[in-house]
Amino acid sequence: MAKREREKNIIKPAKVRWEGGNLLYPLPALMVSCGNDDLGYNIITVSWAGTICSNPPMCSISVRPERYSHDIIKETKEFAINLSNEQLAFATDWCGVRSGRDFDKFKEMGLTPMKAGKIDAPLIKESPVNLECVVKQIVELGSHNMFISEIVAVNVDNELINPKSDTLELFKARLINYTHGFYYKQGAMIGRFGFSVRKK
Amino acid sequence: MAKREREKNIIKPAKVRWEGGNLLYPLPALMVSCGNDDLGYNIITVSWAGTICSNPPMCSISVRPERYSHDIIKETKEFAINLSNEQLAFATDWCGVRSGRDFDKFKEMGLTPMKAGKIDAPLIKESPVNLECVVKQIVELGSHNMFISEIVAVNVDNELINPKSDTLELFKARLINYTHGFYYKQGAMIGRFGFSVRKK
Repeated sequence: MAKREREKNIIKPAKVRWEGGNLLYPLPALMVSCGNDDLGYNIITVSWAGTICSNPPMCSISVRPERYSHDIIKETKEFAINLSNEQLAFATDWCGVRSGRDFDKFKEMGLTPMKAGKIDAPLIKESPVNLECVVKQIVELGSHNMFISEIVAVNVDNELINPKSDTLELFKARLINYTHGFYYKQGAMIGRFGFSVRKK
Repeated sequence: MAKREREKNIIKPAKVRWEGGNLLYPLPALMVSCGNDDLGYNIITVSWAGTICSNPPMCSISVRPERYSHDIIKETKEFAINLSNEQLAFATDWCGVRSGRDFDKFKEMGLTPMKAGKIDAPLIKESPVNLECVVKQIVELGSHNMFISEIVAVNVDNELINPKSDTLELFKARLINYTHGFYYKQGAMIGRFGFSVRKK
């Protein structure tokens, strides 16, 4: 959005108003793996993605129709979301700018396809958390098509689970986020959900 | 997801597989403002939200039907997304656990409703970036309804714009994210989109 055309409308005292644009941040940087033994495997990085429902657990990813993974996901109705962390930042970026038409992304990035539990699409073993997703609905929006999907299984690194409390400590995964053209590390913890009303 | 029922299936060498659940992180922590002069104003905090299309610029938020803001947004077909930062973390959490049926959230949190450019819903002046959204479609998913929306205007703090380059420097906003029950600060920058293929 650098140097975009601005409206003349300067809001007092301190805001500038622009035409509509995508500035909802921070967003996750996710490696989406798809395909099967017949079609081959591919990885595409997406940030236009998110959680959309708690029960059933659902998420969406949005993909341009011209991307190589688009038709694979449309055909197989399956994909996996692999969370990305500091160690995977290079591969995450690379899988976002290169095409599966030209490269075997698993091979090029030294990533290991791992068998999923409930879908045929591969998981990325090196990712700390893998979500197995089944497409329920495709919504054509314009530049992107949105795949509304149910999360049918979750795979988590054992190392993220505190053996004493048996709870998931996701902060240990050192997840990264994508904010307006840049990748960032997770920073310091501010508080737990509900901290503003919790009695000391 | 603490101590959730696990499948017995322990994946060698290092993963645990669970039933489907929401583990797509990090996600934004967003204050959504809604209402108008007749209905009154409200704020609800959501993390089940994201960008879904580049052109036209679109996003979605998901809200439980029983939340006070749900029917306001359904009726007015408008809302604003206000990005949250470190300074707004307390208000962000508070607006997520309290109800507009019981509180005037703007007043309680000392936030200032600001007139938007293209919608009647108020913006939160203290937020660094405000997205004006118009609902295009409501998808009933289960516990949550998803509001598929177009971003019709964007409001940005002047202080986030580098006057020399005329570019938006969003890192200055000190945005926060929500990850599995906790709020986190933005950490160190890792690289720019495309860094993995850029020539030195």
